[in-house]
Amino acid sequence: MKGKLLKQPTIPPKVEAAKDVSELAESMRYIGFQGRMLAAVVDVWSKMLKKENNVIWLGLAGAMVPAGMRRIISHLIRRRMIDVLVSTGANLYHDTFEALGGHHYLGSAHANDVQLRKNRVDRIYDIFADEDRFYRLDVWIQKKFAPMLVDNYPYSSREILHELGKMLQDKAKEKESIVLSAYNAKIPIFCPAFGDSSLGFSIMFANRMGRSIQVDYLKDVHESSLITQKAPKTGVIYLGGGVPKNFIQQTAVIASYQTRHDRSHDSAIQITTDMPIWGGLSGCTFEEAQSWGKIGPRAKMAVCYSDITIALPIVVNALNQRFPKLRRTVPEFTWENSGLELDFHSERL
Amino acid sequence: MKGKLLKQPTIPPKVEAAKDVSELAESMRYIGFQGRMLAAVVDVWSKMLKKENNVIWLGLAGAMVPAGMRRIISHLIRRRMIDVLVSTGANLYHDTFEALGGHHYLGSAHANDVQLRKNRVDRIYDIFADEDRFYRLDVWIQKKFAPMLVDNYPYSSREILHELGKMLQDKAKEKESIVLSAYNAKIPIFCPAFGDSSLGFSIMFANRMGRSIQVDYLKDVHESSLITQKAPKTGVIYLGGGVPKNFIQQTAVIASYQTRHDRSHDSAIQITTDMPIWGGLSGCTFEEAQSWGKIGPRAKMAVCYSDITIALPIVVNALNQRFPKLRRTVPEFTWENSGLELDFHSERL
Amino acid sequence: MKGKLLKQPTIPPKVEAAKDVSELAESMRYIGFQGRMLAAVVDVWSKMLKKENNVIWLGLAGAMVPAGMRRIISHLIRRRMIDVLVSTGANLYHDTFEALGGHHYLGSAHANDVQLRKNRVDRIYDIFADEDRFYRLDVWIQKKFAPMLVDNYPYSSREILHELGKMLQDKAKEKESIVLSAYNAKIPIFCPAFGDSSLGFSIMFANRMGRSIQVDYLKDVHESSLITQKAPKTGVIYLGGGVPKNFIQQTAVIASYQTRHDRSHDSAIQITTDMPIWGGLSGCTFEEAQSWGKIGPRAKMAVCYSDITIALPIVVNALNQRFPKLRRTVPEFTWENSGLELDFHSERL
Amino acid sequence: MKGKLLKQPTIPPKVEAAKDVSELAESMRYIGFQGRMLAAVVDVWSKMLKKENNVIWLGLAGAMVPAGMRRIISHLIRRRMIDVLVSTGANLYHDTFEALGGHHYLGSAHANDVQLRKNRVDRIYDIFADEDRFYRLDVWIQKKFAPMLVDNYPYSSREILHELGKMLQDKAKEKESIVLSAYNAKIPIFCPAFGDSSLGFSIMFANRMGRSIQVDYLKDVHESSLITQKAPKTGVIYLGGGVPKNFIQQTAVIASYQTRHDRSHDSAIQITTDMPIWGGLSGCTFEEAQSWGKIGPRAKMAVCYSDITIALPIVVNALNQRFPKLRRTVPEFTWENSGLELDFHSERL
Repeated sequence: MKGKLLKQPTIPPKVEAAKDVSELAESMRYIGFQGRMLAAVVDVWSKMLKKENNVIWLGLAGAMVPAGMRRIISHLIRRRMIDVLVSTGANLYHDTFEALGGHHYLGSAHANDVQLRKNRVDRIYDIFADEDRFYRLDVWIQKKFAPMLVDNYPYSSREILHELGKMLQDKAKEKESIVLSAYNAKIPIFCPAFGDSSLGFSIMFANRMGRSIQVDYLKDVHESSLITQKAPKTGVIYLGGGVPKNFIQQTAVIASYQTRHDRSHDSAIQITTDMPIWGGLSGCTFEEAQSWGKIGPRAKMAVCYSDITIALPIVVNALNQRFPKLRRTVPEFTWENSGLELDFHSERL
Repeated sequence: MKGKLLKQPTIPPKVEAAKDVSELAESMRYIGFQGRMLAAVVDVWSKMLKKENNVIWLGLAGAMVPAGMRRIISHLIRRRMIDVLVSTGANLYHDTFEALGGHHYLGSAHANDVQLRKNRVDRIYDIFADEDRFYRLDVWIQKKFAPMLVDNYPYSSREILHELGKMLQDKAKEKESIVLSAYNAKIPIFCPAFGDSSLGFSIMFANRMGRSIQVDYLKDVHESSLITQKAPKTGVIYLGGGVPKNFIQQTAVIASYQTRHDRSHDSAIQITTDMPIWGGLSGCTFEEAQSWGKIGPRAKMAVCYSDITIALPIVVNALNQRFPKLRRTVPEFTWENSGLELDFHSERL
Repeated sequence: MKGKLLKQPTIPPKVEAAKDVSELAESMRYIGFQGRMLAAVVDVWSKMLKKENNVIWLGLAGAMVPAGMRRIISHLIRRRMIDVLVSTGANLYHDTFEALGGHHYLGSAHANDVQLRKNRVDRIYDIFADEDRFYRLDVWIQKKFAPMLVDNYPYSSREILHELGKMLQDKAKEKESIVLSAYNAKIPIFCPAFGDSSLGFSIMFANRMGRSIQVDYLKDVHESSLITQKAPKTGVIYLGGGVPKNFIQQTAVIASYQTRHDRSHDSAIQITTDMPIWGGLSGCTFEEAQSWGKIGPRAKMAVCYSDITIALPIVVNALNQRFPKLRRTVPEFTWENSGLELDFHSERL
Repeated sequence: MKGKLLKQPTIPPKVEAAKDVSELAESMRYIGFQGRMLAAVVDVWSKMLKKENNVIWLGLAGAMVPAGMRRIISHLIRRRMIDVLVSTGANLYHDTFEALGGHHYLGSAHANDVQLRKNRVDRIYDIFADEDRFYRLDVWIQKKFAPMLVDNYPYSSREILHELGKMLQDKAKEKESIVLSAYNAKIPIFCPAFGDSSLGFSIMFANRMGRSIQVDYLKDVHESSLITQKAPKTGVIYLGGGVPKNFIQQTAVIASYQTRHDRSHDSAIQITTDMPIWGGLSGCTFEEAQSWGKIGPRAKMAVCYSDITIALPIVVNALNQRFPKLRRTVPEFTWENSGLELDFHSERL
């Protein structure tokens, strides 16, 4: 019994050994604590990429674009390391802002905020931005983007973001945009709290000026759950928790409800700083999710507790170096009427 | 200068001194760390209650109802210590579940989740629930509640929850329900990620069976921002962060945008375990919010870092004992067409 | 099986129900998350008090005295709700400071620290203090207290703190001092990182002026482990983690080593904000401690994640109201040569 | 003014751009949140290395050796990226254990701990170890190492650890040991809670068998503060908080006290998961330390909130790649009687 418990000794990494980020991540497989979990994230993601007919969901919480993660997320989309994106409105709004030439700035978390207000400078932790430039984007959404949408049609957020991606194809000054990359790669983006962002309220302003654009919560639920229902296998990756995590988890519940047997996700990754002990969904363990049937009983799972701005650059660089030319079966989504057709084809990433 | 810095000595509380919860909270005013912040939460909330023509928003994240907070929230509504509720779908779903006679159970955070799955027992940290009973509620929403709604009308989540409250008036076995209390007290509830819950997906199932019910994100944004725009003063209370916090904060941004001068919230409370250092909106300081004009430069503010299930019972018991018969000016909301009329009247709580 | 899992429904507390702090704590027994754990702390501590021939250790980390917890800890000592104290030097230094008439002041966590420095005001989170007054205490320790000690004798920290308590009996202006209360109640205090505080370095200054006072780490280990070895039962209470927690845990390891069979602690409480996931001893679970034999396999255990300045006032007030006149068997410690005699007698608290 | 606030735009890193770990760290300079702080840690450490006559302290908390960090710390010592080490006893004990051929094993944080106990397997979060092997080391310390020490001499922990290093020179099977590397590099190690570890209690057992070995807290304080007092400049690096952090901070207080003007540390780094908001010294900001004069008003400072097992491998690999052959002025320590002579010489690392 003791022999079974004590099988694989730790291997303390040597400093000289790691030449690149991929080797660094590999050297962390045999240590303890969250460092080991970081290596596990890379390994579970690798397995997800090699699995056939596997649809990979990415849930993206917080405001990762102001924090500089835009090109990394765009890379994941363009290299097809993910297949569906569920995001807060903030990430998509700030992505659009940067795509159209806007900038975020290095600031300080200890700034005098009342002073910042007087200068109309908005702070996101240690990042600053020019509120007048945000205002110009809000007006652009209201005056230029909203006219592309029709009235009295219940849009899903996916459809709205598809329209936005189409518009960015012409207008974007910076091509490594999340919304634009997803449009080009035909990857759906859902924004399940669409109203809860400048994107949402700027379109609402068009309504106050006489339009009647509608974005329907229920259609988002319908469309997203179709994906998990139709996919032979699903992997889920959560960067932070929040609504994106719950929304993706729930597609498994809905698919199970519809078919009356468990249609759980097959592999699962989370990078987060939310803790299980406070009882929230954001920080809950994948074990807890197994009790609900959201994650399968034999799923490969890795949770790493870390700020995303530390862990994500490492993980994605390591994956990129590990798979210089991966061939993967990627899903294609054809949305018609209120249905989805899901096909797979092999692609060199 | 030193004299100015060193004015009020700490007063270490004596154990015998506090006879009730209100006195306990008062004795914590002169200590340090989060204990002092707990006392500050009680004091700022007291000021909110005494302010004339002040609309008090409550943002409720997480799954506080399974954790036993239902009657406390219901008390806040019935005693008019809050005026508008913004909640996750989870709280409202679990509230409806308990209102209709369902139960959550004391469980363990260290359970064997694969075993729980086999028994169809769902776990929320250290709380268990019977999935088959949840399923019956899902069917009830789809088969009994959805028929109360009309097709092809863009509902706000507030309207849907008003309908649900009306239905609970007849059906509820347990009257201290959040949704029912809000209906009776004519307090609006918004659920800005409505699709992201069993409430949302169960109505969606009705659509899959032929209905076409619509719940419109943009209408939620419109209606909620009208409240802040029309209110002479607003106070905000955040239990946790998440979408409810951002959604309420954003009403100030929208109202400012509309009027082109800052219409910030006048006082602000947060009880949370989310930390500023990770850069997310959930954990960001009210100072950061001041840079955006969401919170006013002279607002009374109190943030207490604590699990809500510890802090909330103390705070609400303390308020209840402090104000046995408060007279308050409370807002009345009259929603017509797409407009809001906001009046105030004085009421003994 | 499902019936076994779903036995005790949650009982959401009513606000009006709790008349005092004890009733509030009781009402939290049937909720979820950390609120339930707070109730569990009160319940496990109650059991510790009722157990016969049980020695209760308190580990006190951090700087709880500047934060206003002095009288509460002193109350625990005077009412014999604990029997041995293990503390950081900071708590004992700041206790001595307040005992001699010094004050800590309400300050702000967002102060300009470079400005504070210019005024010789020291900050401990949101507490300020006058560095010149600290300096006078440092000189007092060096010039008045150190002369009470002999040279070239290997003191344990317990012996030093006993001498300090004796001196405070004459000098203290404020009687609810931790060091003084412990002296009067004949409760031993250990400070296992004695050098790591102003208390330690001020005595060292006497050595630089020609004395040769010695404080021996190994004697602390010897004396403390004798207590656990000789006690029929032991309960442990950790306020925070750090060296006090490890030091008390280790007494079980030493006692086991000495006797070659497990002499684990019988009941265990921790109130902390340290998380298990970072792998440190401060935040590790009592389950982990069971693998080491530090905590017994059938021990009653309660861990509550909370700031101590919130949880401790509630817990101690609740205990105080629950046991207005408890009769308890309390240990008496007789230290002679390098041995300990441990007796018990019954006492009305 | 706005122009001053908005100077340096963020530069979202491209995935392909980073070839090695050093380039990855550099690419994180222009992002937000903790990722930026990680880059700042590398940059401040780089500056420390280039500063002339600068003594670099490393404070090492927790149990980093069982988590696999031994060779990285040993590398820092051998390459002279640090000059003095202050550590918990745990790290030094587990280092000695591995040096003598012992192993830690990959385990699980969700193990059945009562089962582990039955097998005498000790758990440290997700690491397992064989308690019988620990026991053999405890006996070795008592029976083989303690005889190298003399009776009735007040040792500092530095002196004890020097003796241990000497003994490991013969006995160590694994040369990348922290204690051994420090011995070879003539780098002092302090263990300011020496009794609080198996190292301490195993020597105490020798005393119970008739020896009278003494380890003096006050001598540790004396010796350590001499270093800061005599060093022209000091940099401090804290991996975690705890006693090592406070002990190193305090050397500045003592040096200032001795000279009656501020002798603060000149540059400061911390990697930790301890939060400021709980008021403890472990998590307190360097700004707070500035109010005490522990850190200078113009010091270069970087705090990164991260698990050390994630951040440390990245930081040290990045430094190693950035400085393949740095020439540095390194301090030499000559301890005689109770005094210290401190010299510097230039060395190719």
